[in-house]
Amino acid sequence: MSSDRLTRSADRTQAIMRTTLELAEEVGYAKLSIEAVAARTGVGKHTIYRRWPSKGALFLDAVLTPSEPGLDYPDTGDIVADLRRQICAAVDLLGRPPLRHLYQALVGEAQHNPDVAAALNERFIRPQAERTVARLRRARDQGQLAPGFDLEIAMDILSGPLYFRLLITQEPLTHEYVERVLDVLLAGMRPRP
Amino acid sequence: MSSDRLTRSADRTQAIMRTTLELAEEVGYAKLSIEAVAARTGVGKHTIYRRWPSKGALFLDAVLTPSEPGLDYPDTGDIVADLRRQICAAVDLLGRPPLRHLYQALVGEAQHNPDVAAALNERFIRPQAERTVARLRRARDQGQLAPGFDLEIAMDILSGPLYFRLLITQEPLTHEYVERVLDVLLAGMRPRP
Repeated sequence: MSSDRLTRSADRTQAIMRTTLELAEEVGYAKLSIEAVAARTGVGKHTIYRRWPSKGALFLDAVLTPSEPGLDYPDTGDIVADLRRQICAAVDLLGRPPLRHLYQALVGEAQHNPDVAAALNERFIRPQAERTVARLRRARDQGQLAPGFDLEIAMDILSGPLYFRLLITQEPLTHEYVERVLDVLLAGMRPRP
Repeated sequence: MSSDRLTRSADRTQAIMRTTLELAEEVGYAKLSIEAVAARTGVGKHTIYRRWPSKGALFLDAVLTPSEPGLDYPDTGDIVADLRRQICAAVDLLGRPPLRHLYQALVGEAQHNPDVAAALNERFIRPQAERTVARLRRARDQGQLAPGFDLEIAMDILSGPLYFRLLITQEPLTHEYVERVLDVLLAGMRPRP
């Protein structure tokens, strides 16, 4: 491909992603269709289907692509500060408009579409879990976390309360909430001497 | 109403609930319809619509009604044993067939249907949270939990990891997993002296 064609192809991909998000916000995930994205972008629907075999695949890409660069794990040497910063960044991105409702719809779709569930995990959750565990392992090695801290379920423990609030109680996700969750997780439920 | 009519009405309600679950398992939530439930039970669809104004309301009742009696909080005086027993009971009920996929579908529906989300919280989550907080408060008063333990987010902390596994990673929910989550939550992430 010439660099011109590459640019045009990247522009087209961007237009498709942006239009998918726009339409999903306008009509909701249930009524979103590849045909409508094709019509609004002026791209043939077969071109879209060639890269995204289903509405679920297209929507997943559109929701997650803008989020990926923002969620890298900082390492300032202070695990509590880094956890706070990283979780607040995730909350700012996925827990607020415009992405909040779209991300909820994506997780909703993953409940009855195994391909979307698998892609959500491979594309987004697993890489995030790996970065989280790597950062926590360094902190544990440096004595900043309990030596027996169970790294394998660290992601569930740290993310679970946020997802519970996003998907179940559907209350606002604030930095103050992140702070309270971290306080309990760091201190533990049992009394300390 | 005579007691005969009451019995017939209760029987009919039971038949509608059972048929809703059966049909949802056969065709999935998306293809479930009040018309199909009416046809299979031999009850007029208007009779069903009078009590359950939407498919979401009917499905919510059908999924949650059998679960409610099983989730009362024990109080043996040992908070760790009681938490373990109660969370394992919830996992056995909602985290395994036949309810697991139906409960996932219900939460999926709650992501784009505010009535279902509100009913799920009022009917199921909030009463469960109140029982949890009441049990934890007694334990805190007895010195079994840290004096500063944040009761208001206790439900999010305890349930979050299970919902994360149910809805996001979709891995199995086992008693061993409950045990590991409780170990981390009780001890906390920070080193203990």
